[in-house]
Amino acid sequence: MAEELRTKVCIIGSGPAGHTAAIYAARAELKPIMFEGFLANDVAAGGQLTTTTDVENFPGFPEGVLGAEICERFRKQSERFGTQIFTETVTKVDTTARPFKVQSKDRTVVADTIIIATGAVAKRLHFPGSGEGEGGFWQRGISACAVCDGAAPIFRNKPLVVIGGGDSAMEEATFLTKYASKVYIVHRRDELRASKIMQHRAMSNPKIEFLYSSEVVEAKGDDLLRSVMVKDKKTGETREVEANGLFFAIGHKPASDFLEGQLETDTDGYIVTKPGTTQTSVEGVFAAGDVQDKKWRQAVTAAGTGCMAALEAEHYLAAMNDQ
Amino acid sequence: MAEELRTKVCIIGSGPAGHTAAIYAARAELKPIMFEGFLANDVAAGGQLTTTTDVENFPGFPEGVLGAEICERFRKQSERFGTQIFTETVTKVDTTARPFKVQSKDRTVVADTIIIATGAVAKRLHFPGSGEGEGGFWQRGISACAVCDGAAPIFRNKPLVVIGGGDSAMEEATFLTKYASKVYIVHRRDELRASKIMQHRAMSNPKIEFLYSSEVVEAKGDDLLRSVMVKDKKTGETREVEANGLFFAIGHKPASDFLEGQLETDTDGYIVTKPGTTQTSVEGVFAAGDVQDKKWRQAVTAAGTGCMAALEAEHYLAAMNDQ
Repeated sequence: MAEELRTKVCIIGSGPAGHTAAIYAARAELKPIMFEGFLANDVAAGGQLTTTTDVENFPGFPEGVLGAEICERFRKQSERFGTQIFTETVTKVDTTARPFKVQSKDRTVVADTIIIATGAVAKRLHFPGSGEGEGGFWQRGISACAVCDGAAPIFRNKPLVVIGGGDSAMEEATFLTKYASKVYIVHRRDELRASKIMQHRAMSNPKIEFLYSSEVVEAKGDDLLRSVMVKDKKTGETREVEANGLFFAIGHKPASDFLEGQLETDTDGYIVTKPGTTQTSVEGVFAAGDVQDKKWRQAVTAAGTGCMAALEAEHYLAAMNDQ
Repeated sequence: MAEELRTKVCIIGSGPAGHTAAIYAARAELKPIMFEGFLANDVAAGGQLTTTTDVENFPGFPEGVLGAEICERFRKQSERFGTQIFTETVTKVDTTARPFKVQSKDRTVVADTIIIATGAVAKRLHFPGSGEGEGGFWQRGISACAVCDGAAPIFRNKPLVVIGGGDSAMEEATFLTKYASKVYIVHRRDELRASKIMQHRAMSNPKIEFLYSSEVVEAKGDDLLRSVMVKDKKTGETREVEANGLFFAIGHKPASDFLEGQLETDTDGYIVTKPGTTQTSVEGVFAAGDVQDKKWRQAVTAAGTGCMAALEAEHYLAAMNDQ
């Protein structure tokens, strides 16, 4: 039978939001329990940071820090103050009755408050050369975050490709022209989804060229990405385009499916929080980090909301004791 | 004559908010100029963190980090990506015309956007033993932040004193009972300013004792604080109260005077931002960190808003180029 544990604060997720929540909750003697996940959403515990190499924009690390290393540092800090961490993925929550229930395959945690910090995953396309490891260029030229990775030396004064046709594709392409010699926007349709203003901005940028009705079918290179094969969907022809970087800008998917509709989410699945807070539609359930953020998506902004969630959970628990 | 410089982004302030804004703006090739201040608001460049010893709750530092060291790390990271830093205090801004003007004694910076991250200062009282250095117990038992410092070993199972009568005094006293053997709330009036619910919570806590119409007139100890002298304002009598910690909870003052009313502020002087953003009442002027935050006031939440401010400034500049 599954083990049952009782806690004041159960944290789901182990990126910067989850661990900052854990650090604050643990220091407030709330003895939080964290489910860090076991390859939840196909990502290692630690979240999206584990899929990057150098993190240069998290404040406090002037020489940069490896994604895996900063995750390990967050985790140690949570544990140091008494967070109990389970390397298990949450399969089900019940927020319809109090105390709440959080379940993994191996145990049930009964909790007065829940902090959801399960993050989001950038959508990626799959084609030969797009993966990790041997023969793949993921993180060796292929990225899903222009803001995080665009400034890397391997992209300076080089041709780059952005895949997408929405606002964020326009924005990321425009952003990348700061570094790149040229940016191709490859879009599968012959019309963009982006707003007029963002289209206009990208179209009036002399460094940006649009490849409509096109798709990338292969990534090639040596130790790093050197070119991509682009197929014109109308003619069926494929040509090689020199590119040292390839950025997916086709959106993110928040990890909120396990909630089964118990919390209010927007049409894309992001948990809705009261602006300026981490409060969800259920009192006592808080959300932090990318699972509730489609705008900023940075490690440090996620960490900030993790801190807020812990402080709000602490206030909620104090008020509960008054009753 | 004062030197005149031109920039896209001028950052005022050098705490976690200012430096995170600088790191993001510099990595976006915006070549920001920062005024880090020269003992602005009587605090060294780096802000409130420079007045603390160990920082244990900033994520990424599992063994803790000295306040002065993390400030230095933030600064190095800003500089690494090309932020130009002046150790001067801003005396005047002009946001009534574009481009904006930011002035110190020695120079004028003409800027398309301004990020204000001047922070706030916890109010302190001054009496014998309250200061820094020889004979003073500031940061050797005396603190202005229970959340930051309360978990320190020197306060565990020890009697503590909180000075104040508002909600935050009640909250900090209640918070400190997690660690303390006893918490005295010393308040100069015979009635509290705190809300009924916060009063009730503190009053029903068996570890809290109220000393009304009282003031602390002296702090005593050896290398650390050991006791405080408390004067009863009605009887005029003074008695010694054993206390290993003394926490000021009498409010904060945001560093917004230099704005001379050009931005909307609330009645306490905090810059008003649109919820969920760092936008102020003047388009192109952004505010991050404690100067616009009376609720969270943590280094990591400030850093999060600094990142947001830089991204918003970047968007604003891109839109400006469209015109």
